[in-house]
Amino acid sequence: MKHIYAEVITIGDEILYGQITDTNSQWISSEIDKIGIKTIRKTSIGDQKEAILEILTESQTRADILIFTGGLGPTKDDITKKTIAEYFNDTLEINELALANVRELFESRGFELTEINRLQAAIPTKATYLNNAVGTAPGMWFNENGKIIISMPGVPFEMKYLMENEVLPRLRAHFKTPFILHKVIRTVGIGESFLATKIESWEDALPSHIKLAYLPSMGQVRLRLTGTGDDKEKLQQEIEEQAEKVYPTLGKNLFSKENEDLEMVLAKMLLDENATLATAESCTGGYLAHLITARPGSSAYYLGSVISYSNQSKMDLLGVKKETLEKHGAVSEETIIEMAEGARKALKSTYALATSGIAGPDGGTPEKPVGTIWLSCAGPKGTVARKILTTKTRIVNIEYGSKAALNLLRKMILKENL
Amino acid sequence: MKHIYAEVITIGDEILYGQITDTNSQWISSEIDKIGIKTIRKTSIGDQKEAILEILTESQTRADILIFTGGLGPTKDDITKKTIAEYFNDTLEINELALANVRELFESRGFELTEINRLQAAIPTKATYLNNAVGTAPGMWFNENGKIIISMPGVPFEMKYLMENEVLPRLRAHFKTPFILHKVIRTVGIGESFLATKIESWEDALPSHIKLAYLPSMGQVRLRLTGTGDDKEKLQQEIEEQAEKVYPTLGKNLFSKENEDLEMVLAKMLLDENATLATAESCTGGYLAHLITARPGSSAYYLGSVISYSNQSKMDLLGVKKETLEKHGAVSEETIIEMAEGARKALKSTYALATSGIAGPDGGTPEKPVGTIWLSCAGPKGTVARKILTTKTRIVNIEYGSKAALNLLRKMILKENL
Repeated sequence: MKHIYAEVITIGDEILYGQITDTNSQWISSEIDKIGIKTIRKTSIGDQKEAILEILTESQTRADILIFTGGLGPTKDDITKKTIAEYFNDTLEINELALANVRELFESRGFELTEINRLQAAIPTKATYLNNAVGTAPGMWFNENGKIIISMPGVPFEMKYLMENEVLPRLRAHFKTPFILHKVIRTVGIGESFLATKIESWEDALPSHIKLAYLPSMGQVRLRLTGTGDDKEKLQQEIEEQAEKVYPTLGKNLFSKENEDLEMVLAKMLLDENATLATAESCTGGYLAHLITARPGSSAYYLGSVISYSNQSKMDLLGVKKETLEKHGAVSEETIIEMAEGARKALKSTYALATSGIAGPDGGTPEKPVGTIWLSCAGPKGTVARKILTTKTRIVNIEYGSKAALNLLRKMILKENL
Repeated sequence: MKHIYAEVITIGDEILYGQITDTNSQWISSEIDKIGIKTIRKTSIGDQKEAILEILTESQTRADILIFTGGLGPTKDDITKKTIAEYFNDTLEINELALANVRELFESRGFELTEINRLQAAIPTKATYLNNAVGTAPGMWFNENGKIIISMPGVPFEMKYLMENEVLPRLRAHFKTPFILHKVIRTVGIGESFLATKIESWEDALPSHIKLAYLPSMGQVRLRLTGTGDDKEKLQQEIEEQAEKVYPTLGKNLFSKENEDLEMVLAKMLLDENATLATAESCTGGYLAHLITARPGSSAYYLGSVISYSNQSKMDLLGVKKETLEKHGAVSEETIIEMAEGARKALKSTYALATSGIAGPDGGTPEKPVGTIWLSCAGPKGTVARKILTTKTRIVNIEYGSKAALNLLRKMILKENL
């Protein structure tokens, strides 16, 4: 069984200096993984000729495929194209297809084609041109000395267009690969080390071609099983069999056998019972609504939210009583219940989730330190409330509070259906 | 002038396979950059002994400092610690400080210390222990053969704690570095190539020790000036002088001379005139509110939002007229104006922003394709509305629409103050 190995290389001083986060390499490796190509290393280097030449030489000693992004813009700091040409003792020439594409993009926007943009259509003569219909920088494919070298722009949606329409189909056609299959199981509400102890005997009994990894984040732990083999169906079946063995041990901490996020699991639960959802957010400030609405089709069950950042809006839009706020404060069991029930009424939904807490960095007190978050879920059979204590970091509190609210809804729906 | 070079290495199959995005290396390189240490390469490798040994050898030929994150968890797939020990012909021993830390963390949570967690306190004897007060995995610092090698856990908040409290102070004390200064200027509403043409003569006249880079994202382009020199104050002054020269050319496209994001610039503008803000979101589904509330202190000017995902909620909570929705639809100039004015009224704010569009992937029509977004801003002197056409991709539309709404508010406040 021969593995096909790839290295993903992002070029750009802005990545190296930490001024932007590289999300391209994650997306690329995830996509090639699906067609059985294993990423063995990811590298980020700057817009320097020597660094590009060095990695071009070095990566070919380890990998069959080199996938570059970045450094293809029209400006002077972008030197990827001419450096690859130099590496192959090649020259840049205007590619007619590329030029037609650049011209069309400019004309469709009513702009004149400038010289700087015309030069974007110049590529090394040894490259196969990959059509970038959503931008002016061309994609390039080299097949030299038994290695495939791909160069794409660093703008994420241009790179994705090129991967989906040009690169992945060509890689599929060029290589015949063994199968690497992953299955991810998601748990919530149990820490990594407790989970590891709980499922240790199962993990130890896994066959050698199926490996387990723990991926913890924000109160959740994903368990990833990775199998390698030549018979795809057999491998899939073996992984499923191993997974089946661990489900009973995971109990209610298991929320998805199919690597679905909480938002997706909840979408199914709500649609199944023809129910709708509303939210009322204070400390999470819209992030909970964003998690829900980022999912296509969420308008089928999500009605909306009141983000009641001020006390006045809690009273005006959610009907929270003035006395409740005065007596117990905005971050209290009494207020959160009125918020959830108020949202359910104002938005006429089956369920309503509410959040109110001290996101920080200021506003904490000894009784209610930063990270104190009250959550509530109101439904047809009543209302529950729960207090959690998260961290000192605002953005973590916002995200953690939102995820915990979703889990509260999951538990309420599970319980009501018992 | 001697540069200090670092390489940042993240370890973990989950990064390599693209199952999570590595944000650690961005944060680390940005922090060491501030103390004049230049990241020359970033690498991600898997949890494999050979890959770790290889990068340990290789990186030392290029860099003075190797910063590792990941692979320090309690589970069997984490092998960084023992591999580094092997590399240095060293053995692991329980470190008493590390053990005390692990024990305290477990006891404070009311848990018993398990054997698997006790072993987390074992580190190579050649390592200096770096105290991780927020987790059970230890930090480690090696000073061997003139190179500094640092190993930290991959959980972002644990890594950040260790960097801030242990690693950065030690690096500052150990190295005397030249100064690398950055200045970032932010523009909005002008594309990279047009901007480049506009400022070409200024760029060509920059001195050789000050370099320019273009960082485009979501309708904005950041211009980064990077200077290198031995005299920090002189360098700072030179960079400021160069920046001053380009401001007039940038005009109203310039929104921050100090690398502030739009949310921060708006926060200052609103606080300056003692104004408050409310939002009404349909297609952006909470993301606009999240952008605003992610900023600490936003409760001083932000009152809240109505996320009116359903037509019913547009009528009930924002007072949008039934006839308007029936005649013009939810994505229309008429509806967006009623939403903005309705939010301003319901939340009693100085300004209100509203969004309504077709985020996709479904719901588009020939007249209103996916990516059609109406924006409106209502203020004391009237209401403006604007239509934009973004992309076919839901999450891009949500983000782009939110940023464009913030820019609409910026332009309204600028205009009202003329």
